[in-house]
Amino acid sequence: MKRFVLGIVIFLMCAGGATGQSIPVSQDTESCIECHASLHPGIVAEWKKSRHALITPEEALKRSSLERRISVEKVPEKLAKNKVGCAECHTLNPESHKDTFEHNNYRVHSVVTPQDCATCHASEVGEYGKNLMAHAYANLVENPVYQDLAGAINGVQSFSKMKTTLNAPDERTSADSCLYCHGTKVQVIGMRKVNTDAGEMEIPVLSGWPNQGVGRLNPDGSKGSCAACHTRHQFSIKMARKPYTCAQCHKGPDVPAYAVYKVSKHGNIYSALEKEWDFTAVPWRVGKDFTAPTCATCHVSLLINDTGDIVVKRTHEMNNRLPWRIFGLIYAHPHPKSPSTFLIKNKAGLSLPTELTGEPVAEFLIDEKEQDRRLQNLKKVCLSCHGSGWVNGHFSLFENTIRTTNEMTLTATKIILSAWDEGVASGLAQKDSIFNEAIEKKWVEQWLFYANSTRFASAMAGADYGAFANGRWYLSKNIQEMLDVIGCKGKRRE
Amino acid sequence: MKRFVLGIVIFLMCAGGATGQSIPVSQDTESCIECHASLHPGIVAEWKKSRHALITPEEALKRSSLERRISVEKVPEKLAKNKVGCAECHTLNPESHKDTFEHNNYRVHSVVTPQDCATCHASEVGEYGKNLMAHAYANLVENPVYQDLAGAINGVQSFSKMKTTLNAPDERTSADSCLYCHGTKVQVIGMRKVNTDAGEMEIPVLSGWPNQGVGRLNPDGSKGSCAACHTRHQFSIKMARKPYTCAQCHKGPDVPAYAVYKVSKHGNIYSALEKEWDFTAVPWRVGKDFTAPTCATCHVSLLINDTGDIVVKRTHEMNNRLPWRIFGLIYAHPHPKSPSTFLIKNKAGLSLPTELTGEPVAEFLIDEKEQDRRLQNLKKVCLSCHGSGWVNGHFSLFENTIRTTNEMTLTATKIILSAWDEGVASGLAQKDSIFNEAIEKKWVEQWLFYANSTRFASAMAGADYGAFANGRWYLSKNIQEMLDVIGCKGKRRE
Amino acid sequence: MKRFVLGIVIFLMCAGGATGQSIPVSQDTESCIECHASLHPGIVAEWKKSRHALITPEEALKRSSLERRISVEKVPEKLAKNKVGCAECHTLNPESHKDTFEHNNYRVHSVVTPQDCATCHASEVGEYGKNLMAHAYANLVENPVYQDLAGAINGVQSFSKMKTTLNAPDERTSADSCLYCHGTKVQVIGMRKVNTDAGEMEIPVLSGWPNQGVGRLNPDGSKGSCAACHTRHQFSIKMARKPYTCAQCHKGPDVPAYAVYKVSKHGNIYSALEKEWDFTAVPWRVGKDFTAPTCATCHVSLLINDTGDIVVKRTHEMNNRLPWRIFGLIYAHPHPKSPSTFLIKNKAGLSLPTELTGEPVAEFLIDEKEQDRRLQNLKKVCLSCHGSGWVNGHFSLFENTIRTTNEMTLTATKIILSAWDEGVASGLAQKDSIFNEAIEKKWVEQWLFYANSTRFASAMAGADYGAFANGRWYLSKNIQEMLDVIGCKGKRRE
Repeated sequence: MKRFVLGIVIFLMCAGGATGQSIPVSQDTESCIECHASLHPGIVAEWKKSRHALITPEEALKRSSLERRISVEKVPEKLAKNKVGCAECHTLNPESHKDTFEHNNYRVHSVVTPQDCATCHASEVGEYGKNLMAHAYANLVENPVYQDLAGAINGVQSFSKMKTTLNAPDERTSADSCLYCHGTKVQVIGMRKVNTDAGEMEIPVLSGWPNQGVGRLNPDGSKGSCAACHTRHQFSIKMARKPYTCAQCHKGPDVPAYAVYKVSKHGNIYSALEKEWDFTAVPWRVGKDFTAPTCATCHVSLLINDTGDIVVKRTHEMNNRLPWRIFGLIYAHPHPKSPSTFLIKNKAGLSLPTELTGEPVAEFLIDEKEQDRRLQNLKKVCLSCHGSGWVNGHFSLFENTIRTTNEMTLTATKIILSAWDEGVASGLAQKDSIFNEAIEKKWVEQWLFYANSTRFASAMAGADYGAFANGRWYLSKNIQEMLDVIGCKGKRRE
Repeated sequence: MKRFVLGIVIFLMCAGGATGQSIPVSQDTESCIECHASLHPGIVAEWKKSRHALITPEEALKRSSLERRISVEKVPEKLAKNKVGCAECHTLNPESHKDTFEHNNYRVHSVVTPQDCATCHASEVGEYGKNLMAHAYANLVENPVYQDLAGAINGVQSFSKMKTTLNAPDERTSADSCLYCHGTKVQVIGMRKVNTDAGEMEIPVLSGWPNQGVGRLNPDGSKGSCAACHTRHQFSIKMARKPYTCAQCHKGPDVPAYAVYKVSKHGNIYSALEKEWDFTAVPWRVGKDFTAPTCATCHVSLLINDTGDIVVKRTHEMNNRLPWRIFGLIYAHPHPKSPSTFLIKNKAGLSLPTELTGEPVAEFLIDEKEQDRRLQNLKKVCLSCHGSGWVNGHFSLFENTIRTTNEMTLTATKIILSAWDEGVASGLAQKDSIFNEAIEKKWVEQWLFYANSTRFASAMAGADYGAFANGRWYLSKNIQEMLDVIGCKGKRRE
Repeated sequence: MKRFVLGIVIFLMCAGGATGQSIPVSQDTESCIECHASLHPGIVAEWKKSRHALITPEEALKRSSLERRISVEKVPEKLAKNKVGCAECHTLNPESHKDTFEHNNYRVHSVVTPQDCATCHASEVGEYGKNLMAHAYANLVENPVYQDLAGAINGVQSFSKMKTTLNAPDERTSADSCLYCHGTKVQVIGMRKVNTDAGEMEIPVLSGWPNQGVGRLNPDGSKGSCAACHTRHQFSIKMARKPYTCAQCHKGPDVPAYAVYKVSKHGNIYSALEKEWDFTAVPWRVGKDFTAPTCATCHVSLLINDTGDIVVKRTHEMNNRLPWRIFGLIYAHPHPKSPSTFLIKNKAGLSLPTELTGEPVAEFLIDEKEQDRRLQNLKKVCLSCHGSGWVNGHFSLFENTIRTTNEMTLTATKIILSAWDEGVASGLAQKDSIFNEAIEKKWVEQWLFYANSTRFASAMAGADYGAFANGRWYLSKNIQEMLDVIGCKGKRRE
C-alpha cells in the first residue's frame, strides 16, 4: 500500500508539472531572491510557477522547431545553462537602459523591455514591432486629431458665466486614461532614498510608472511591453491564450471585441468547455487541444491539424491576418501600410486614413491584393472547423456590414458638417475643436462606439452587439438625436 | 510498479470517458471522415468527443426511461447499430431536403434540421415546436409592427437638405441583425463548382447561410435549429445546461436574462462552484449534482430529488413554466395561447397582444387558470431549495414589478400619444412609422430596455438591473427626457 | 488489482474532502432533516457539503489561531459536540427573535441573524457592525437626501395635461430595488396556516421577506445578513473569496467595482488561472495559494507570506483598509468616522459629507492621519507583489483622479445651481425635489455613475472604465449636454 501511495505522489508530481528544483539557478538570481522572497513573496512565488523557472534556455533549444518557444538559434552562453531568473532579465543590456542603477554591486533596471526579451524571443519582438500596437504611443500623441479628441475627453472643464472652459489634461490623467493601454513614456526623473534592512539605498524615480501599455516608450528606447499580454512573473502561455488578456484593452464601447466574443457561439463554447482544453500545448492542435477559437487562435497562434500539418504559422504581427481596420477611426478602411499611422495625411491635411466623407487615402493603405492575402490567411483558421460555404457566407455578411456602417457614419458626418455650416456648432472652419461640443460628441459615438460595435458583432458573430447592445439600434437612433439637437439649437439662434 | 502505472492508465480511461473506439461506425460515415478529417479537422475531432460517437442508439435505448436521452421508442434499423456519424444525419430524409446534392455517390445535405433530429429526439422536437422561438422568423417578418421596428433599426438612413431618408434594410443586414437570433430563411439559390483533391465538385449555394437562429426556415420546410442550443458537433449537454448558451441571444438590453443571472445569488453560486457540479448527469439531481439553478434547470431540465422522485419533468416547451411574457412587447402580459404571435390583432388592428394603452387582448392570451398552472410548475423548482414563505414573497415582488413597470410604460405611451397629437412627432394618425423619430425611439427604450430589465431583475433577483443598470433609474429618467423633447420641439413650432 | 482500486477510492475520498459521516448530529437537527430532506432537498444537500456539517465546534477550536475560523474562545456546551445543523442555528436565542414560532415542539425562527452567528463568530460580527454596510438600511431610509433620490427613482410617475406627477414608491418596489442590497426591515405581520403531511401548521408571515441585504433589520433587532456574502447553506469560504459574491451588489454603474476588476490585470490573472488556486486555505498564502488578489484579498482576508509571517490580519471592518469613500456621494471624500452616515449634516443642513460645492464636512470625517494609517494598511497587500515605486506611482494616479473627478463634478454642480437660479429647473430654493427633472438626473449621473466609474477604474486599474466605459468620455460629454439642456430650455422661457 505504501508503494501505491508513493506511486500516486510520483505520478501527480510528473503530471502536475515539475517543481523545477533540479534546474540550476544563477548565483546572481539567488542573491536577488535572498531578500526579495520576503519583501515581495508574490513575485517570487509566481516566477517559480513560470516556465522560465522550469527549464533552461539550453534545454529549451533542444525541442523541435514546432514545439520551441525560443525563436533565436542561440542564447548567450551566460544565460543558457540557468533558469531565466530575476538577474537574467533585470541586468540585461545595462548600457542602453537609462533606468540602470547600482544595487548591491549589480547594475539593475526595473523596466524589462521588448529589447531585453528579444535576447531569446527575437522573432516575436520583431514581428510585434510591425503592429500598430507597438506604435500606440506616438500614434496617439503625435496625431493632432487624436490629441484634440484626447484633450476633449481628459481635460478638466470649468464653468463660469454660463460657459465652460476646457483645460489641457495633466500628465497623470493621460497616464490613467488613454495611455494606460496605449503606453506611457517611462523616464528617470530623479533618484530617491529608501531605508531597507540592508541599509539606505538609492533607486530611480520613474515618470509614467507603473504602466504596461502596448506601445510604452521605454528607458532603453524600445517600444511596448511584452507584459501587457505575457503577464509578469508567471508569463503563462495559458493566460495569453485566454480571452481575458485581450479584454484588458479590447472590451469597452470603443473596441468591444471581448464583449462580442462572450456572446458569440465561439465564446459560448469556450466558456462552457475550456476547462477540458489544453492551453499549454505548443504547437496547438485544432479540435484536440481546443474546440473553439480564442482571440489568440485566430490572430496569433501556431496551429496544427490532427496529422501534424501546419494550419497557420505563429505570428506576433497580428495585422497579418487582418484585411480591414474596423475600429478607432471614422470609417472602416483597408489596413494602413505602415504601423506609424500618425504620419498619414488626407487631402484635407488631417492625420486620418480617409477623408471626412469616407474616401480612403489609398497611398497609405494596403491594396486589395494584400487585403485578399490577409483574408485568405485568416480563412485558413475558419476552414479548420467550417465548410467553405459557411466561411464565404460569413465574410459576405461582414463586408456588407462594413459598407452599411460606413454609410450610417457618413450620414452622421453630413449632419455635423451642416451643424458647422449653420453655426449650430463650431468646427474646422472656426478652428475650434471638433470634439468638444455635445453634438460633436454624438457624432464621435456614431463611429467610435456604434458603427464599430456593429462591425465587431458581424466579424465575430456576437449578434446582440449588432442589434441592441451599442449596435444598429443606437446607430439609427443617434442620427435622429443629432437632428433634434440641430433643430433645437438652430431654432434658438433665429 | 508497471502494474501500477497500467492501473492508473486504465483508471483514467474509465474515469475520463470512454474513447468510443469499440463502437461501430457505418461505412458511409467512414468514407466522409476519410476526406473531411483533414479538410475540417475541428469538426471531426469535436464529433469524436460527442455522445453521438460514444454510444449507438441501440445501446442508448436500453437505458431506464429517466436516464434516456432518446425519446423515440425505436430507431430505424439502419441507424440503430452504429455511432451517429456524419452520414447518419447529413443523408437523412433526402427527399424533403431541397438542399440535397450528389456528393461522391451520396445524397447529402448541409443543413441538418429539427426534422432530421426528430428521428431519435421526437418529443423534444415536438415540444420545441410549441415555443414562440420555433416561430421566431414569421413572428418577426410577418408582423407589420415588428417590420416597422426592424426597418427603423436596420435601414440605412441618408441625409440631404436637413432631412433624413430611411431606406429599407438589405437582406444581409437583416441576417446579420435581428435574424441572427430569430433565424433566416435558408434557400438553395444556385450551384457552385469547387476544386478539390478529388476533382471538381458541384455544391449548392445557400442564401441566409450560415445561420443557426432559433426559428430558422429550413430547406426541408421545418423550423428552427437544434444547434442554436445543442452546439455542433459536440452536442454537449453540459454546454446546453450552462448559461452561456442562452446568453447567445438573451443578454442584450432587450432581454438581459443572462446579465441579470450573473449578478443574482444563483449566478454567484454558479460562477463560484460550478466546477464541482455534474452537468452531464441525466436525470439531474437537485443539491447533489448542482446547488444552484442555471437557465436550463428552471426552464427545461428533468430534475429529481435525493430519493429519486421527479421534481419536474423535462420539457422543451419552455412556455410550460412561464405564466407571463415579460419582454419584447410594450406591456408585460399573460403568455399567448398560440406560438404564432403574428396572428394576434388588437382592437386598433395592430399585431400586438395588448392595446397601445396596455389592456390585454384576452382572446389570444392564456387565462388566469393556465397562468397559475404554469406558475405552480415553476415553483416546484424553487421549492426544492426554498421554503414556501420565501417563494411566495419572491413572486409577490415580481407581480408588483409587472404592475409598476406597465404603469411606467403607460406614462411614456401617453407622452408619445400627446407628441403625435400635438404634431411634435408623426405617428399612427399620420401613417408614419411609429419608430423612426428620436422621441419615438425613447418610447421604445422605455419598454424594450428599461421596463423589461426591471422585470428580469425582479424575476431572477439580480438587483442592479432593477435599480441602476438599465432599470428603474432609466425608467424614471426617460419619462423626464421625453417631456423635455416635447417641450423643446413643441416650442419650436410656436 | 482489487487492492489498487480500493487504494484509488480511499485516496480520492481523502483528497476530495471528508464526507462528515462520522461527525455527530444533534437529535434536534436529525428531526428537522427527517421531513425537510424531502421537502427541500437542495437545502439539506448543500448543507451537507458545508464546513458546518464536517467538523464540530469543539474540534474547530483545537486549530491554531491562524487556522481557526471560529473567533470565540468557547462555544456553548450544547453546541460544541455536534455538527452545526438546522436546529443549532434556527433555534438559537428564541427569546429575542420576534419571528420565533412553535414547530413540532421546537421554538424555531426562519431568519438567522448576525446575532445568531456571533455565538461562534463574535469578532467578525463585531467588526462587520462598524461598516457602513451594516447600517445600510437607516443610512438610506433615514437620510432625507437619499429618500428624495430613491423616491425619484422608484416612484411611479403618471401623466396628464402635459405634466407628470411623481407618486411615492410602494413598499414592494423599494424592497425590489434599493433595499434588495441595502436590506429590508423584516417583521412578523401575521400568521398563516399551511397544510403539510404532518397536518396543519401555523407559521409566521414576514414582511420584507425574502431579503439578504447587507443592512437588513432583523426580527431580533440585529442588523445585516451574513448570508449576503456567506451564502446559505453551504457557507463556502471559496465562494465568499471569489469576486462574484461582491459583484451581487458592486457591479452596476453606481458602483462598478466588479466590472472594473474583470478588465484589470488582476481580474485577468484571476479569470485565467483561478482554477489552480486554493480558495479554502486559512490562512491564505500570497503567491502559493493565489497569484492575484480578489476583492476579499485586499479588503478582508488574513494573508501570510511564504515563511508564515502575517502580511495583513483578517478584518470584517472593510473600512479599515479604505482611506477614501469614492462612490455613492456627490464628491469623493475621507471616510466617515461613524458608520451611521445619516447623522451627518453639512452647513446647508443636508445629510451629506460635503457641501454641495465639495468642501468636506470635516468634523464627521476621518483626518489625514487616519487616512494614512488605512492607506498603509492597504499598501501592505500591494507590496506583497509590487515594488514601492510601483505602489507609490499607482496611488499617485489614483489621488490625482480623485481630484480631477471632484472638479468635473463641481462643474456639473455649478451648472445645476445655475439652472435652479435661472428657473430652468426647480431645486432647493423652490423646495422641489433635486432629483426629479431631466437635467437634475444628468447631474446625478455625473457623480453617481461617471466620476465614480473613473475613480474605480483608477483605484483598481481597469482602464476602460476610466476612459470610454462610463468613464471620462461621459464625464466630459455630460457637461456639454447639461449646457445644451439649459440653452434649449432657457430659450423657451424667453
